[in-house]
Amino acid sequence: MADTTTRIDETHELIASDKVEGTAVYSPANEKLGTISHFMVDKQTGHVAYAVMSFGGFLGMGNSYHPLPWRALHYDVNRQGYVVDLTPDQLKGAPSYTSETMPNWSDQLYGHQIEKYYEGPLGH
Amino acid sequence: MADTTTRIDETHELIASDKVEGTAVYSPANEKLGTISHFMVDKQTGHVAYAVMSFGGFLGMGNSYHPLPWRALHYDVNRQGYVVDLTPDQLKGAPSYTSETMPNWSDQLYGHQIEKYYEGPLGH
Repeated sequence: MADTTTRIDETHELIASDKVEGTAVYSPANEKLGTISHFMVDKQTGHVAYAVMSFGGFLGMGNSYHPLPWRALHYDVNRQGYVVDLTPDQLKGAPSYTSETMPNWSDQLYGHQIEKYYEGPLGH
Repeated sequence: MADTTTRIDETHELIASDKVEGTAVYSPANEKLGTISHFMVDKQTGHVAYAVMSFGGFLGMGNSYHPLPWRALHYDVNRQGYVVDLTPDQLKGAPSYTSETMPNWSDQLYGHQIEKYYEGPLGH
């Protein structure tokens, strides 16, 4: 656990890693999609490769993990959570994994797969 | 708290944000310097601006926070912690803050200050 006795959690440009974790994720239609579990950081460059949304059985799926591009997350002050501009169908078709279907990937291939999938839905 | 029932914490290239948090930091001489409390991420780019080491009174200082460049952290498998190639004196003189002396900064200036300080000690 992080020490939270003295903390600057957020500034105009920056946000604390452990403030992102645990934050709710909503669809534009205000459905709760899941929660940011953690994110994966490139050890060498310090760049966030993707955020991982955990997914508690919404859409008829069991508990699962959806890697999302960092740029897909837009914070909404009113909802106090992230909004991703994705429909349930776009999420259903997206790369994900569960305890039964762990991905078998090399980092780069998996990263590319995530990027490629979201290029369409996110429009960039 | 992150859900840790099904997790890939680390691959060859990537590491989970919440695995970095709480990890011990040592000097090359094996002194425990502190613990990674969290790190600050650029909201727009997803790049880690700096990691924040919390500091439990070592060197005669009270509980304090030392922002460190991401590149300063080298994981040591044997110690199961990060090693920073810095002497206690280099750390003593480094930018830090406590609850009594919160930094008054703009993000960019503070980031530059950290980078500038560590250019010498880290040699890059």
